[in-house]
Amino acid sequence: MSSQVRKTPLVIVALVALNVILFAALVLNRADTSVSVGQASVGLDRGVGASSETVYRWKLVTTWPKRFPGLGLAPENFAEMVKEMSAGRLLIHVHGANEVVPALGVFGAVSSGSVEMGHSAAYYWKGRIPAAPFFTAVPFGMNVQELNSWLHYGGGLELWREIYEPFNLIPFAGGNTGVQMGGWFNKEINSIEDIRGLKMRIPGFGGDVFTRAGGTAVNIPGGELYTSLQSGVIDATEWVGPYNDLAFGFHQIAQYYYYPGWHEPGPTLEFIVNKDAYNSLPKDLQKIIEVATRAINQDMLDEYTARNNSALVELVEVHNVDVRRFPDDVNATFKSISQELYLELAAQDPTFKRVYQSYQSFLDGVRKYHSISEEAYYQMR
Amino acid sequence: MSSQVRKTPLVIVALVALNVILFAALVLNRADTSVSVGQASVGLDRGVGASSETVYRWKLVTTWPKRFPGLGLAPENFAEMVKEMSAGRLLIHVHGANEVVPALGVFGAVSSGSVEMGHSAAYYWKGRIPAAPFFTAVPFGMNVQELNSWLHYGGGLELWREIYEPFNLIPFAGGNTGVQMGGWFNKEINSIEDIRGLKMRIPGFGGDVFTRAGGTAVNIPGGELYTSLQSGVIDATEWVGPYNDLAFGFHQIAQYYYYPGWHEPGPTLEFIVNKDAYNSLPKDLQKIIEVATRAINQDMLDEYTARNNSALVELVEVHNVDVRRFPDDVNATFKSISQELYLELAAQDPTFKRVYQSYQSFLDGVRKYHSISEEAYYQMR
Repeated sequence: MSSQVRKTPLVIVALVALNVILFAALVLNRADTSVSVGQASVGLDRGVGASSETVYRWKLVTTWPKRFPGLGLAPENFAEMVKEMSAGRLLIHVHGANEVVPALGVFGAVSSGSVEMGHSAAYYWKGRIPAAPFFTAVPFGMNVQELNSWLHYGGGLELWREIYEPFNLIPFAGGNTGVQMGGWFNKEINSIEDIRGLKMRIPGFGGDVFTRAGGTAVNIPGGELYTSLQSGVIDATEWVGPYNDLAFGFHQIAQYYYYPGWHEPGPTLEFIVNKDAYNSLPKDLQKIIEVATRAINQDMLDEYTARNNSALVELVEVHNVDVRRFPDDVNATFKSISQELYLELAAQDPTFKRVYQSYQSFLDGVRKYHSISEEAYYQMR
Repeated sequence: MSSQVRKTPLVIVALVALNVILFAALVLNRADTSVSVGQASVGLDRGVGASSETVYRWKLVTTWPKRFPGLGLAPENFAEMVKEMSAGRLLIHVHGANEVVPALGVFGAVSSGSVEMGHSAAYYWKGRIPAAPFFTAVPFGMNVQELNSWLHYGGGLELWREIYEPFNLIPFAGGNTGVQMGGWFNKEINSIEDIRGLKMRIPGFGGDVFTRAGGTAVNIPGGELYTSLQSGVIDATEWVGPYNDLAFGFHQIAQYYYYPGWHEPGPTLEFIVNKDAYNSLPKDLQKIIEVATRAINQDMLDEYTARNNSALVELVEVHNVDVRRFPDDVNATFKSISQELYLELAAQDPTFKRVYQSYQSFLDGVRKYHSISEEAYYQMR
């Protein structure tokens, strides 16, 4: 392990840091932890061109280590776009996880107004908002093209805003990885029988489904993931996709790389803005934030698509990774369990039900169109 | 025909107008026609907030009728975004085709500086730049997710800028429809034999491929398309996809709706900016243009995805449209002919060759990743 790990020490350190933070937050149930920081917006008289205008200085907290590949670059690119478009009138400082608040303290910190903005993912808040994962990704749900369309032309964003309103938050879609991978396994999966008794690190609804299918979904801090998989404490782990997985080095210790990522078929990240902070801005800066989030929402996908692509080539051609498709009966079981889960949660929570109905109705329609357009094209080209 | 047409007269009129314009431009070989208009940027002292800044007034010419669904809404949305982000310092007036220049006069008009911006599609300029279609869509090429990634993280945009530089133009990706439909047919296609002798309205590389496969690709002005198909002058026509096709009313006169759109698997539209006009702007307004084009590039896809989806439901469930897949041997023939065509063109034109190599190399890699991610997910969900 050690020699290979030395090749990518900073990435490993960052990943470990991220996961320690995430795990700690989960274990301690402190997802809403926020520490109070000073109000960061200060009005300054400053010359911009020939004019004198207020300069706003904001803090943006994230769930990712500073400049984490993909996820962590997006908020940095966002802040740079905003700075340039505003001619320096809105300066947003991006903080990595734990610099100002813990990784999963983002929601609480922005909600309270102790910082103005955050970059994270809605599904981390499912403990307080059961419907939140629909705005990120759910097992057997929409892919990135579909989710973007539901959000912006299918009523999804309006629902998201309504649900975050009581928390004094305005959400914006903030990037996407595309369909993720199914994970790294040290046992061959030939049928659903092979899931029974399998220990896998898989969070969220995906973990719930995995457990109902007979497996054991566990939370392992990222810092222990590599050794846990290597020593057999766990049999499998999911992570993201080739771009982030190659850097982590899982190919050195896992036998099989399964696809597709049924549990995360195109997760949308989120930008959240404190409503009072947003309302304090002039209209042009509000619009600059909105349009920049939209540009970043696509830019992150463009980055992941290019880098997943080249990383997969390296995994297969240089590292001889054994890439395998989940068997049909495994997919079918995961799928039927997912649908049962949504119906159960809809019966328990009226807001979940309303979001689920909007989401599922859009998905039912767009799936038909995509079966004869995007999907058919993939098959025949 | 008349009773149904009365249901959507404005759309039909717009479509007819678009196609008359396009056809006239093609026939007259006046793709680069531009009429001289006055320089539209004028500096005005105007109060913006507490400041006094220059207001730039630009003209943006398009290949589409004013506010044409999808394609024509994108530049309007762009202009509104720019106006709001710039607090009214950059006001862009959008002109429909033929208001200032003909539909295919966009490139020439922006190149000459008679107007500052245009919204069109690169493949219209293949007469003067054989490689231009790679920046829009080519048969059996990249889909929208892949093309966006190649442009922004694979070197595509740099090539596009280099190729447009001698024309004093800066291009930006400016929207996408996703995979289009294969077209409306009045003859059943059961094998490649059925293509022989078939008369179809299909432009661009798709038309070249269709002709080499034994068919007859024809250019019919949009104003005559409906009656030509109805009377049997042509056997088939392609258009866009359900959202635009439903409005046109093809389902009233064609028997079969074939998929997928092998000839246009996700065309990217373009914004082009005159380089001198761009350089005359302060940096913040330059960035506002760049970021707004990026946001619109995604927004148009979101719109098409939602509206193609609901239009397909209407076509199938209300109008009982017979939706069919092209047979495998037809696809295979079109594909091999497409590849021959690219190799021939690459041998004739060094720039084509360079762009083709960059494009094909990216496609070869991303296709592998998408076969186990996006495509595999479509198949198993």
